[in-house]
Amino acid sequence: MNININRLMESMETMWQIGATAKGGVHRLTLTEEDRAARDLFRQWCEDVGLSVRVDDLGNMYARRAGTEDLPPVMLGSHLDSVPLGGRYDGPLGVLTALEVVRTLNDHGIETKHPLEVVNWSNEEGHRFNPGLFGSSVAIGTREAEVAFTAIDDDGISYRDALMRIGYAGEIANRPADIHAYLEIHIEQGPVLEAENIPVGLVQGINGQFWREVTVIGRPGHAGANPMQGRADALVAASRMVLGLRELALRSVGYGVVTVGKMSVAPGAMNIVPARVEFTIDARAAGAEDLATFDAGIIELARDAEQAEGVAITVAGTEAYPPIPFDAEVMNTIREAMVTEGLPVRELWSGGGHDAGVVGLRWPAGMIFVRSKDGLSHAEAEYSSPEDIEAATNVLLRAAVELAR
Amino acid sequence: MNININRLMESMETMWQIGATAKGGVHRLTLTEEDRAARDLFRQWCEDVGLSVRVDDLGNMYARRAGTEDLPPVMLGSHLDSVPLGGRYDGPLGVLTALEVVRTLNDHGIETKHPLEVVNWSNEEGHRFNPGLFGSSVAIGTREAEVAFTAIDDDGISYRDALMRIGYAGEIANRPADIHAYLEIHIEQGPVLEAENIPVGLVQGINGQFWREVTVIGRPGHAGANPMQGRADALVAASRMVLGLRELALRSVGYGVVTVGKMSVAPGAMNIVPARVEFTIDARAAGAEDLATFDAGIIELARDAEQAEGVAITVAGTEAYPPIPFDAEVMNTIREAMVTEGLPVRELWSGGGHDAGVVGLRWPAGMIFVRSKDGLSHAEAEYSSPEDIEAATNVLLRAAVELAR
Repeated sequence: MNININRLMESMETMWQIGATAKGGVHRLTLTEEDRAARDLFRQWCEDVGLSVRVDDLGNMYARRAGTEDLPPVMLGSHLDSVPLGGRYDGPLGVLTALEVVRTLNDHGIETKHPLEVVNWSNEEGHRFNPGLFGSSVAIGTREAEVAFTAIDDDGISYRDALMRIGYAGEIANRPADIHAYLEIHIEQGPVLEAENIPVGLVQGINGQFWREVTVIGRPGHAGANPMQGRADALVAASRMVLGLRELALRSVGYGVVTVGKMSVAPGAMNIVPARVEFTIDARAAGAEDLATFDAGIIELARDAEQAEGVAITVAGTEAYPPIPFDAEVMNTIREAMVTEGLPVRELWSGGGHDAGVVGLRWPAGMIFVRSKDGLSHAEAEYSSPEDIEAATNVLLRAAVELAR
Repeated sequence: MNININRLMESMETMWQIGATAKGGVHRLTLTEEDRAARDLFRQWCEDVGLSVRVDDLGNMYARRAGTEDLPPVMLGSHLDSVPLGGRYDGPLGVLTALEVVRTLNDHGIETKHPLEVVNWSNEEGHRFNPGLFGSSVAIGTREAEVAFTAIDDDGISYRDALMRIGYAGEIANRPADIHAYLEIHIEQGPVLEAENIPVGLVQGINGQFWREVTVIGRPGHAGANPMQGRADALVAASRMVLGLRELALRSVGYGVVTVGKMSVAPGAMNIVPARVEFTIDARAAGAEDLATFDAGIIELARDAEQAEGVAITVAGTEAYPPIPFDAEVMNTIREAMVTEGLPVRELWSGGGHDAGVVGLRWPAGMIFVRSKDGLSHAEAEYSSPEDIEAATNVLLRAAVELAR
């Protein structure tokens, strides 16, 4: 029994038309008309294969294939919304591979003891309504529904109003009461599998992460009239920190990464010594120890830079998420399916957040990564080959059947 | 014989009213209504003390006090225009101290062999019409008048039209034919004199300088999914260069300074590895050797960063100005005047460009610096004390009399 890759890719192609961009990507922000069209299409496909679709108060869609017993479901899925000018794999791949698993089981008339549910989580991306993962986190109870409902987009429209407008405000009773196991396919979004020539990865968990906003206050001065010795150059101090942060990450034992992605320099004139620099720090690691080391290291680097450069540095931001290791039994089931498929078992941590990580806080969950071309993600050019997708979906099929047996 | 500091400060105060800002600075861009008012006031003051004012085709104003012989003039002055939200000393101090020298000579009925001319150069600052020093550089012949005339401001108005509009388009024949010696007082714009507790500085020359625009091309990537080892982080590479440039400047033997004042990071998202960084380099030194070392060093640092970080770096920009040492005899005359005044003789190079540097390319020139509080310049809070201004203006008086004798 194998999935039908042609049927799957055809569905991917059809879904891609909704919000397709000229450069081959997709622009389908959450709760927009495009999102409504994607949801309508998904609902139609589910009903076509005999699934019953329910929608909860957050707009999460659950398409159920009954089991032979009334047990908690094995849930498979991801999300259909995209970032602005995003790629066509991210999100939809997880939903449509889940649907392909159901179609394949139907083809072969295979029943499972546990029901199967294909899920489309609302607002995973968080671009229109911050900070994302709304659907899964309210459904499992780590976020208050009211916080999600009252989130406002750039046009002043609330999540609640946007949801009503597209007709996907359902019942609170439709939230999952229990989940036997949760599985999600996603593109890797990074270069690791490609570098090692491996099609499919077994995800060990979601990296913990935290963010900081750093402000460096120096002293402005005429670029010609201020000797180097007496300067308090905010950019020199910030540069010192950028390099220090990279060293800090390189010393981490696990999958630690530290990124300065955003920086502004003021006053920003060619002939004035920078007086103020603001930059962000994004720190992630699989281990809580690494995260603690990063946290302390940032403060130490700031103090060093203050002393060396005569500037004042503040480090703000306390939002932090601990690492979420996936369920050992679920991982083992995926691992066995990979072996059955003749695939090498490369385990890796996810640097990005996913609905699977949220679900994993409460129920057994696991993830399967598909090799990404050039490690691209959230980009119109992101790509994974049909061959790799086929391999990953067959793993998903076998693991789902095993878990729902 | 001494200058009248109360009269001078009163004139400074009156001039400051034209374009005065709430925070004690001045906003008087070139060829605006404020500039016209400042010019009108200056012309009136000149005529009040018997000077004849002529205006050349660039709008430069020359107020002449006849000498006993028909010889090339000793010229004193600076400029009345300001940068946006600038200080009240920069520029006007040089013009009004020159006027005070004439008033003092009148008080004492002292005649000089050479005529004296007080000059107000047009568009020194270059903010409205780039790149500044228009009046002096066209007058001495290092810039084509047409290039200045056709320069366009942000509203699409040409220098020529703006000049006509304020009624200060004069005759080409009024440009200086010859200058016996040129003297200019200016605030230091830096912290050196204040740090050494010295009121007045003898300027040795104008630092040579050049500018570069650097573009670092890295590879974007998800901040979580891209391990540190395989990244091509444009900001890490740029930070490396910023620190390297500082080291390069610290190794210079003279007054070398290198500044990165402007930087932009793209795409500029907290969770994306920077793909492109652009920054500027402003390099200045008194010696041509230092400048050559900087020039070569920048390329070497770029190549090192490319190799180490896997990025591509381009260094653009070829505009360069050689150092302009001031005339030895003029400097000696200023030095003797300082000694007469009982002032310590601290010699230093100017990090900023000045009309005196332009004039010095063709005729004997010199400059006197006044101590700046906190080294501030081009800032509303810039300040020099009346005591320091008095000392500098007495030096100017004695040097001018000696040169015009």
